[in-house]
Amino acid sequence: MSSQHMRVEVINPFLSATADVIEALAHTKPKNGKPRLKNGQGVEGDVTGIIGLASAKTRGTFAVSFDESTIVGLVTEMFGEPPEPESRDVMDAVGEIANQISGSVRARLEPLGYDFEMALPTIILGRGHRVFGMEDAPAIVIPFQTDAGSFTVEFCLYAS
Amino acid sequence: MSSQHMRVEVINPFLSATADVIEALAHTKPKNGKPRLKNGQGVEGDVTGIIGLASAKTRGTFAVSFDESTIVGLVTEMFGEPPEPESRDVMDAVGEIANQISGSVRARLEPLGYDFEMALPTIILGRGHRVFGMEDAPAIVIPFQTDAGSFTVEFCLYAS
Repeated sequence: MSSQHMRVEVINPFLSATADVIEALAHTKPKNGKPRLKNGQGVEGDVTGIIGLASAKTRGTFAVSFDESTIVGLVTEMFGEPPEPESRDVMDAVGEIANQISGSVRARLEPLGYDFEMALPTIILGRGHRVFGMEDAPAIVIPFQTDAGSFTVEFCLYAS
Repeated sequence: MSSQHMRVEVINPFLSATADVIEALAHTKPKNGKPRLKNGQGVEGDVTGIIGLASAKTRGTFAVSFDESTIVGLVTEMFGEPPEPESRDVMDAVGEIANQISGSVRARLEPLGYDFEMALPTIILGRGHRVFGMEDAPAIVIPFQTDAGSFTVEFCLYAS
């Protein structure tokens, strides 16, 4: 895997799918920062949704990490009332956000010849946990800012 | 997905693959506790490796969560010297353990008609973080005990 490179064309689909899904679900248009190659530093968050991407030809993973105040603000917009910070509602919302972003990315990448399926989401709770990938499979990180606060997506997608 | 059930036949392959991979890598034979259906409580750990399982017909996810002292002990056995607790060595070991267990499960389930690919591992660091799945896709949890301490695997695997 160390001899492989992620193709730059995958970045925009992740960026635009994330912005579109958050806007559709939480009625706030996120502004993205500059995508960067992950340098070994973990992405930090309080709540993270993770979803694997896989096919016979492609392996990858996607994660979206929220500060607690950000996800509480977004879920308040989604459901119309403020959730308990570590509630089932918050977890299922984060899993659903990860699902919808991955599904949207999948649809956007299909015309470019990518073909992969989505695993089921895993949700992590824990103040200030950090998210890493394998050293030989560098990820792309994109920070986002919303009215409710900041969040971060990271992903990698490698053809075998 | 709520109308689906995980088939009981998937439990033993996860159980035996986990025991075999840990024994092969860290030269300690883990003893498993009773597999149980996850009841909404998160599995707690300090270091977790997560890997998605996916095909056109199957969606699932696998996670293995270690206490810090357990993974430090296991990696000491693997590499012959004690690692820094939150080092790259520990993270790559956890990713590799998740990779090898998933790969072994995949080989064991193939003869039973299962057919899925593995996503890339994601590794979480954070003292006492908790791991959850979606509410409508209950996971199976299996606790393990080793000479180095305890760890937990959880997984779900649903046919669509």
